[in-house]
Amino acid sequence: MIMKEKLTIIKVGGKIVEEKESLDNLLNNFANIEGCKILIHGGGRSATRIAEKLGIESRMIDGRRITDEPMLQVVTMVYGGLVNKNIVAGLQARGVNALGLTGADCNVLQAHKRISETIDWGYVGDVDKANETMFDKLIKQGIVPIMAPLTHDGKGNLLNTNADTIASETAKGVANLYDVTLIYCFEHPGVMRNPNDPASVIQKIDSNNYKELLEEGVVSGGMIPKIDNAFNALKGGVSKVIITKADAIDGISGTHIVL
Amino acid sequence: MIMKEKLTIIKVGGKIVEEKESLDNLLNNFANIEGCKILIHGGGRSATRIAEKLGIESRMIDGRRITDEPMLQVVTMVYGGLVNKNIVAGLQARGVNALGLTGADCNVLQAHKRISETIDWGYVGDVDKANETMFDKLIKQGIVPIMAPLTHDGKGNLLNTNADTIASETAKGVANLYDVTLIYCFEHPGVMRNPNDPASVIQKIDSNNYKELLEEGVVSGGMIPKIDNAFNALKGGVSKVIITKADAIDGISGTHIVL
Repeated sequence: MIMKEKLTIIKVGGKIVEEKESLDNLLNNFANIEGCKILIHGGGRSATRIAEKLGIESRMIDGRRITDEPMLQVVTMVYGGLVNKNIVAGLQARGVNALGLTGADCNVLQAHKRISETIDWGYVGDVDKANETMFDKLIKQGIVPIMAPLTHDGKGNLLNTNADTIASETAKGVANLYDVTLIYCFEHPGVMRNPNDPASVIQKIDSNNYKELLEEGVVSGGMIPKIDNAFNALKGGVSKVIITKADAIDGISGTHIVL
Repeated sequence: MIMKEKLTIIKVGGKIVEEKESLDNLLNNFANIEGCKILIHGGGRSATRIAEKLGIESRMIDGRRITDEPMLQVVTMVYGGLVNKNIVAGLQARGVNALGLTGADCNVLQAHKRISETIDWGYVGDVDKANETMFDKLIKQGIVPIMAPLTHDGKGNLLNTNADTIASETAKGVANLYDVTLIYCFEHPGVMRNPNDPASVIQKIDSNNYKELLEEGVVSGGMIPKIDNAFNALKGGVSKVIITKADAIDGISGTHIVL
């Protein structure tokens, strides 16, 4: 049996990358990860802030952003420009050969405009497939992809795409080439039984106790699509999925999701 | 003697990439260029427009933008995000494997903050060196770099950098590996004796007639640094430099600058 090379994929939310101190900590920790790696970032708070300054209203449904043409311009600027390029420059300063990517760059993530009978999401994309060959070529050159939550439809349109989904789709895409660990970072040390008690982190969630946790209301809101993305990644061949705090991306700490 | 592979570098100004019709024409023409190629774009008009909407004043000296921290955020958003990613998506739709880059991405262009005793330019960068090895690696993978007018200082800071300079420095950087043609595009068919007569295009400018053209006032204003950049590129080993209209990037039309 041929051992696959390890690849760590880190997804960080907007809050962490939008404040200087937490961003610096994250970049230090990310720079210290050995071997191949990919970073996926959000930026929703900055998008909302810049949109507001430009007089563009942010409309959200279930935490997802309705993306009309003016809003697409905002997220293209904020995710693809402001947030992404600052992370890239910050990692280059730490000796990481970072390369900022949207799904359009090298066609790494092609998507289609979301089809919904009830909601006009606008320029929101659902990922078709990660371009594993291109990711592999870049990684083999020692390049570290830094991905903004944007994809494209191959017809010239950029599409706003949830960063958690980009993380799981990218992880699945490269899972037949690499031994992938996918780490979702947020502000808590993991999924907690008691939201006020960091010591109540659940070490392992599998499909059995997940049902119970849902019924008990321990897992709710935005955590549900995150865990669904995690299961989706595992079913797609990803070796390990963890939900943890941004300063604890050691591959051990946090809540491990298992099938 | 080993023949070097041909590489075409196209620089287009903001006006062309900021209007849908002229951008579409440019992307069609650029997609049709055979062989290895690089596109470098501006975006100053959009930066001024977005800055104004955000209540940030644009201050220019000799056509160059003073870049304080709020303005750096604007140009990072506009050049690195809005303009760059739309070009990338538009080229992918035309079958070009485009990759958007700032100088920070893969460290392709490192620069230093401009030092001036008289003017505080802020976050404005003068290029130290193009990373020819990295450009070569990307191009050898069939990737087409699309460069925003931003560099970095290697210490985590992005720097606003003139797109004409990025074009000449990139061209010089790769000139020992490739047979480089550098084409500066703008709204006129070339350098004209009579600004109102497109038929008055000067076919060739060399160091001798350049002096005369300067004395006669035929070459003035923003054309002077452009031609200086052209001579700089030629002295750095670039094979051919042409100033022409965006719809005439055939390597023949326009004004040829020669040493």
